[in-house]
Amino acid sequence: MTATVNESINESMRNGVDTATLFATLDAVKAAPEAAKFQFRADNEWINGTHSRSTIHGFHGVGQERTHEHTFHFDADHPAVLVGRDNGPTPVEFVLHALAACLTAGLANIAAARGIRLTEVRSTVSGDIDLNGILGLDPDIRNGYQNITVRLMVKGDAPAEKLRELVEQSQARSAVYDIITNGVPVAISVDTA
Amino acid sequence: MTATVNESINESMRNGVDTATLFATLDAVKAAPEAAKFQFRADNEWINGTHSRSTIHGFHGVGQERTHEHTFHFDADHPAVLVGRDNGPTPVEFVLHALAACLTAGLANIAAARGIRLTEVRSTVSGDIDLNGILGLDPDIRNGYQNITVRLMVKGDAPAEKLRELVEQSQARSAVYDIITNGVPVAISVDTA
Repeated sequence: MTATVNESINESMRNGVDTATLFATLDAVKAAPEAAKFQFRADNEWINGTHSRSTIHGFHGVGQERTHEHTFHFDADHPAVLVGRDNGPTPVEFVLHALAACLTAGLANIAAARGIRLTEVRSTVSGDIDLNGILGLDPDIRNGYQNITVRLMVKGDAPAEKLRELVEQSQARSAVYDIITNGVPVAISVDTA
Repeated sequence: MTATVNESINESMRNGVDTATLFATLDAVKAAPEAAKFQFRADNEWINGTHSRSTIHGFHGVGQERTHEHTFHFDADHPAVLVGRDNGPTPVEFVLHALAACLTAGLANIAAARGIRLTEVRSTVSGDIDLNGILGLDPDIRNGYQNITVRLMVKGDAPAEKLRELVEQSQARSAVYDIITNGVPVAISVDTA
């Protein structure tokens, strides 16, 4: 892996994380807290039926408009059993991907900062949902997931207890975990012109 | 578009939604509410640094294990300004995509059920986040989005008021809107063996 090559020539690289840059970024934000105000965006276009496509490219951060190095496109749809054509995962499955990816990215950063080298991180995130909610068939059943379960498998050069502490800290600092467990106010406006 | 061809030969097709199948599915779930219990999943693997990849394929629903027609893979990463390598969107951007896609799929289904033909649906979903939260620099700032804004543009063969009502109903029945605004309990377990 590239990381292994880099790490042999760069003491600050660990888990593919440049810890020197990570700590420098923390110091920069401490000195100028406004730099940490970000806005992320997704633009979505309806294709047909339950199929739509989002484009993710621009965002705002560190005081200016920025773009990702690539323009990312993602399709979402419903499977045939939910009267769609399966052109992509369902929207609720992307929520599970977001949670897994957020906990994993945090884990790698925190491990790097603590001097722990990870060798493997895998996770399965499951969400249970009763579609009697969104189908409007039972007013006592919510629309969204009733619960979400994350099973993480973490290996690295530290005792099990230290690896578990990485997960605890990643959970404590995860943006998506906070969004999903605590909720976020959402404002919707509609233009029909 | 395929939908246009289909719709000329099939009275039940509207907006690419097979309303006959949609109503039949509703009737089937009314008769057997257990069929509506689904479990969705994402499997994630850490690649390097803040880069990970999720695989979405299997799910449970209508009483049995099922698979999507394809195996979907999604990368997530942080951009360089957040000490990553920009191999994919950030995890929090996938949350915005999920919300846009969920509201849009619901809109198309509800419009089809109400006999309204849509011609265009576009949306931009934005989320404001202050990274002083996840960086641990300010205990008063949350880790996740502080707020999310959805701007929808909807066109179709109905008066503006009817189009707005579609959005209201989609919001009222959206799984991802419920997840994000009301929160979901998340249980995390860790295996280090």
